[in-house]
Amino acid sequence: MVLDRLRVFLQRRKIDAILITQPENRRYISGYTGHDVSIAESSGVLLVPATGRPFLFTDSRYLLQAEAEAAEFQVELYSKGLLALLKKKLPLLSVKRLGFESHYLLHATAAKLSSLADKLGIELMPLSDVIEGFRVKKSAEEIEKIRQAVQLNEEVFQKVFKELRPGQTERQVALKIETLMRKKGADGPSFDTIVAAGPNGALPHAVPTNRPIQEGEPVIIDMGLKINGYCSDMTRTVVCGAPDTKTKKLFRIVRKAQLAGMKAIKAGVTARDADGTARKIISNAGFGDRFGHGLGHGVGLAVHEAPSVNFRSRKKLRAGMVVTVEPGIYIPGWGGIRLENMVVVTGNGFELLNRDTTFLDL
Amino acid sequence: MVLDRLRVFLQRRKIDAILITQPENRRYISGYTGHDVSIAESSGVLLVPATGRPFLFTDSRYLLQAEAEAAEFQVELYSKGLLALLKKKLPLLSVKRLGFESHYLLHATAAKLSSLADKLGIELMPLSDVIEGFRVKKSAEEIEKIRQAVQLNEEVFQKVFKELRPGQTERQVALKIETLMRKKGADGPSFDTIVAAGPNGALPHAVPTNRPIQEGEPVIIDMGLKINGYCSDMTRTVVCGAPDTKTKKLFRIVRKAQLAGMKAIKAGVTARDADGTARKIISNAGFGDRFGHGLGHGVGLAVHEAPSVNFRSRKKLRAGMVVTVEPGIYIPGWGGIRLENMVVVTGNGFELLNRDTTFLDL
Repeated sequence: MVLDRLRVFLQRRKIDAILITQPENRRYISGYTGHDVSIAESSGVLLVPATGRPFLFTDSRYLLQAEAEAAEFQVELYSKGLLALLKKKLPLLSVKRLGFESHYLLHATAAKLSSLADKLGIELMPLSDVIEGFRVKKSAEEIEKIRQAVQLNEEVFQKVFKELRPGQTERQVALKIETLMRKKGADGPSFDTIVAAGPNGALPHAVPTNRPIQEGEPVIIDMGLKINGYCSDMTRTVVCGAPDTKTKKLFRIVRKAQLAGMKAIKAGVTARDADGTARKIISNAGFGDRFGHGLGHGVGLAVHEAPSVNFRSRKKLRAGMVVTVEPGIYIPGWGGIRLENMVVVTGNGFELLNRDTTFLDL
Repeated sequence: MVLDRLRVFLQRRKIDAILITQPENRRYISGYTGHDVSIAESSGVLLVPATGRPFLFTDSRYLLQAEAEAAEFQVELYSKGLLALLKKKLPLLSVKRLGFESHYLLHATAAKLSSLADKLGIELMPLSDVIEGFRVKKSAEEIEKIRQAVQLNEEVFQKVFKELRPGQTERQVALKIETLMRKKGADGPSFDTIVAAGPNGALPHAVPTNRPIQEGEPVIIDMGLKINGYCSDMTRTVVCGAPDTKTKKLFRIVRKAQLAGMKAIKAGVTARDADGTARKIISNAGFGDRFGHGLGHGVGLAVHEAPSVNFRSRKKLRAGMVVTVEPGIYIPGWGGIRLENMVVVTGNGFELLNRDTTFLDL
């Protein structure tokens, strides 16, 4: 159980307690689903001692929700601010070494925490990506939630795809997708939906414009949603009407690269080898310099999380990781093709989470 | 002009350059509208020297947009990361003292910046809320943009209100509002829309649930949108069918407090005095302990920004500030009433930005 795992980590590192501020880590460790407006407007912070009952500090707006969701945690209110509460709490818990999430605490907050620690004779330990490391391998229950997110994603895509017509603008299609996600029960999109038609597809992170979709041009639809906290991420490249020869040619290369990339995935394979297998197909076809991003990334509570599956990473894939496989070719002035599925890494290979085959056999 | 104002600030404080990471500040100073996925996934950073041409550092995805929008800035790519670029750039610009936004830089990033600064013999100056201070007083052009946001907000509210029926759930109504905002051209909501029916209205920051709206109960609708970067924020409390005696009674108290609060607003008045004027009406009616939040807050590029208009702030309101006036009464188990308008502070008093009078004369 994740809380025990964290306690063992703290004990090994001789850290008396850790302050958890990163929202997905907070949810992973406590079950509390509070939504932060921004890093400066948090809905709560965990304080987990190496032994004994952990705490969830929040304000009155979130009290009932926190108590209901984080049953193992003692919920307390920081009515005079987090620092004032820590000033009381840390000595009571005899904390001498306090860990915090260096990658999710503002410099200004850390400076205040540091001066409090000085006063209390506490040593601060900046930590990075500790709980992110725990999150990399998914439990069966997590995979089930991700599967549901992928399935709902496909339902939404199918409906919008069937109604896709030339003349609809990128923005209209993106709005339709995000509205339908919410109507079907998603918490919302897991990232800003990309609908990139014709030349706009040359930018991997295109923002939808008022450009009407034209017959025959490739349209990249990259969409994800979040449900029960877990994310999906899927890309299809589709065409209204008949695709031209160039589109078909590039499409087939990307699809071939995707199939090879998926087949290369297996516990024990390095991320760069999986990436390289897909990349080689695109390079051999003469488009190596038109595939500027990595093959994929982890997906879970966050839509972008470890592991990175790219040409730099020597890390090995492990069973239970969930990653995207999303090769692409981007031609400035012309447009782009990207195809993205999600897979679970297994001991023998991979399990494909997507069922949707729309436009994959061009 | 804002860039000159920033340069004067830097010269006075003997700071050679400032690094701007906060997204609204970046937009305010440069005009660049790039959207950050999160504090860890930025779309760009400004480096503004006390004299000479300022820089906008970004990655290739945002290059064209940055160049088009931030014409006064020299746009450069950080292909090997921000720190690597700064390592080259800071010595070239002879920076000896470098300011940064302590309230919008992660501890981990600040630690790396600090070790770079040590190597280069640069003194780091943590700064907070400098540009936020510039943003407090709005220009005529900014007020015009805010007015447009308020107007669009009211159009959306009007349409949804006219179609409001018992049986619609809070979530359905919130989704309808957010969809309509986008259809009418807004960038999106400026915060998560609140639709809180009956007892749910007792929480000032309620999250929409699947509760169907019932005839006769008060429904708080708190909604805002963003268009051209500027925000609106408006609350109405409405009833499907005939409100009961208690609703009417509380509603009239809140409305009276709102009118008094607006009339108290004028350049030179302290925030606490404006708050106090409205609060007194609610207290005198016996509900002082049921109005737990401040009277209002500034609105601009951010939906919550300075000034805070509450009982603690001794700061004086100044002409050109744009603030909300939003008293409320919250009764646990029963529900709540809140009414929120936006006003511009003027030398003689205030200008009401709202035209909508739905349900204000209960």
